Amino acid sequence: MTEAPPSTPTADNDSVGIVVPQTLHFDQPLQLACGRALPEHDIVYETYGELNAEKSNGILICHALSGHHHAAGKHSADDRKTGWWDSCIGPGKPIDTNVFFVLSINNIGGCHGSTGPTSINPTTGKPWGPDFPPLRCRDWVESQYLMMQHFGISQWAAVIGGSLGGMQAMRWALEYPDALRHCIVIASAMKLSAQNIAFNEIARRAITSDANFHEGRYLEHNTLPKQGLGLARMVGHITYLSEDGMKQKFGRELKTGNLALGAGSETAVEFEVESYLRYQGEAFSGSFDANTYLLMTKALDYYDLAREYNDDPVEAFKHAKCAFLVASFTTDWRFAPARSREIVDALVAANKSVSYAEIEADHGHDAFLIPIPRYMDVFHGYMKRLKQELGHAF
Amino acid sequence: MTEAPPSTPTADNDSVGIVVPQTLHFDQPLQLACGRALPEHDIVYETYGELNAEKSNGILICHALSGHHHAAGKHSADDRKTGWWDSCIGPGKPIDTNVFFVLSINNIGGCHGSTGPTSINPTTGKPWGPDFPPLRCRDWVESQYLMMQHFGISQWAAVIGGSLGGMQAMRWALEYPDALRHCIVIASAMKLSAQNIAFNEIARRAITSDANFHEGRYLEHNTLPKQGLGLARMVGHITYLSEDGMKQKFGRELKTGNLALGAGSETAVEFEVESYLRYQGEAFSGSFDANTYLLMTKALDYYDLAREYNDDPVEAFKHAKCAFLVASFTTDWRFAPARSREIVDALVAANKSVSYAEIEADHGHDAFLIPIPRYMDVFHGYMKRLKQELGHAF
Repeated sequence: MTEAPPSTPTADNDSVGIVVPQTLHFDQPLQLACGRALPEHDIVYETYGELNAEKSNGILICHALSGHHHAAGKHSADDRKTGWWDSCIGPGKPIDTNVFFVLSINNIGGCHGSTGPTSINPTTGKPWGPDFPPLRCRDWVESQYLMMQHFGISQWAAVIGGSLGGMQAMRWALEYPDALRHCIVIASAMKLSAQNIAFNEIARRAITSDANFHEGRYLEHNTLPKQGLGLARMVGHITYLSEDGMKQKFGRELKTGNLALGAGSETAVEFEVESYLRYQGEAFSGSFDANTYLLMTKALDYYDLAREYNDDPVEAFKHAKCAFLVASFTTDWRFAPARSREIVDALVAANKSVSYAEIEADHGHDAFLIPIPRYMDVFHGYMKRLKQELGHAF
Repeated sequence: MTEAPPSTPTADNDSVGIVVPQTLHFDQPLQLACGRALPEHDIVYETYGELNAEKSNGILICHALSGHHHAAGKHSADDRKTGWWDSCIGPGKPIDTNVFFVLSINNIGGCHGSTGPTSINPTTGKPWGPDFPPLRCRDWVESQYLMMQHFGISQWAAVIGGSLGGMQAMRWALEYPDALRHCIVIASAMKLSAQNIAFNEIARRAITSDANFHEGRYLEHNTLPKQGLGLARMVGHITYLSEDGMKQKFGRELKTGNLALGAGSETAVEFEVESYLRYQGEAFSGSFDANTYLLMTKALDYYDLAREYNDDPVEAFKHAKCAFLVASFTTDWRFAPARSREIVDALVAANKSVSYAEIEADHGHDAFLIPIPRYMDVFHGYMKRLKQELGHAF
């Protein structure tokens, strides 16, 4: 068990540079919301910036459905892609690694190194597959809490997440009210709508009806339900983009073929948008685990912030002690601004400190990953407050 | 070749009663937009009301993606379901069968009796399957024109359709400007958006990646790609409903299981909306042909009203001679009001007579099938004009 080395600077002044993922093994059982326990587990994580002596500058990043621990920087000098939230994490960026110590983990149930359905079930010696315990958002909070203890942090400066990550951040505020000073909830919701659940169900059905799914035991059959998972990702992708964004990006442009009338004109027609989605689906299905996708979408569907608080979000948020930043994006129809306003309304009614920004953006749900100027301004502005609390002057 | 008998009245005063579908065989080749010809074909159709002596009261109903000839009335006294547009067709209804003679056909390429992919290809003696010629909307207009000639009608009082049916009605106005006095276009568009195409592509991919699809030759393999077709229908269904409508209809209610924490609670959880979609998907996949679904969605995607008119809808509509009624529904996000307003703007710029109504409704795209009071009022009001033209006094 080694500590993460500080990241290595690169030529980019605002990049955390080259990062090396670390793994932490927990050999005590982790009790889960479903009643079962995970006998032992690994967590893969990355850290950016340095923990101060008071251990007061820690920020936890919670990832969304298809996310993982690699949120910022690169894994090698010639790595073409940066981490998924590199736009927001780095020196001088909203989550400023000159000031904060940032922890980003791959959640349990994931498929990027932390214990999940592709890991070996110690009881059977085979991959967990469909036998991996169903997870709730609160299970991730529990496992993140163990990480917090490992680093000796008693209070996060902030817990931050977008989408499903925002749901975890809110759960932190309710379950461990003393363990965070700020909760930043971006493009999220207190529970999914019927339409959201319906899209998730279609994604799941696409996976489970793939002939190679084998009731989730595809690894034992040396195969992968790639078509189903690709299709699931295509469904997701449409819903992460806005209609206007798709129009601007693709319109009705053709990738191949032509639409003129006459012999043989139709056979090879493919619209740009079809080609794009197919590519996205294929790329995803080669790098993500289908059982993880099923598990994550169910955790999303089952999340209901106020279920144990008489279905009253005001009563729920009364338990929180931190301050909140809530942000939404105008064209996000999967986690619409109306959902964020419900969070804000409940927080206000519960007498909590809350800032809210509704950002004009035509990128749909994906906007939370994109460095839109006003979004960055709002994020920077709020984070300045956290820096001031740490005694940094600006 | 027999004429359709007049429909038989039932106890319902505003029903066309019991109707008997008829079949018409055409043995001359039908030239298609793709350059191929259909050597011969059948059309299944129903008629409601009686054709007057001047043959001036004919109304053509064009159906949408999953529609067919059975638009009104019942097929037997104990038939539990009426035709798909029974809300609008019948004595005293907007399309008043006391006044009008209504023709409703199953389009070629369909799967309800007219020649389509499940029909026998005379060249091979096997079902056409994937070898059925690709169709454009204009091919349906051509085949409907043959039906018009069969009935000796030289001008329709109106051609009416919703969604893909509205696209056919607009194509009629451009291709046969003298053959209709009114064109009624409900919840339609001049072309699909990238988002629409993307949803159709997902539906097609769900079908073609079903292990039972066999490259479209499933009938020869004595099987059906039911899971894929069911999934395709589920995707379609979500997009036909509005988010608010789904919320009101299903919310987050559970069909089975419970979401409490603790042992074994999650395994049997099914939300109402999941159960509903599954049921809809299964019912559809048992009664619809997968190749027809592929063919129809491609006709939708490829439709572009103004493509041969320098991509200028104003130039296109200058060819029209009829008057137009355009209607849309506020929560329809598949064929949004903005798409209807584009039609209206082009018609106005082309100096055509056009009435437009944007109806408040929370039923999404499906609203065009539902007898929403203001929708019925608008429809009735407009049809009164057609009755007056026929010399009926009110």
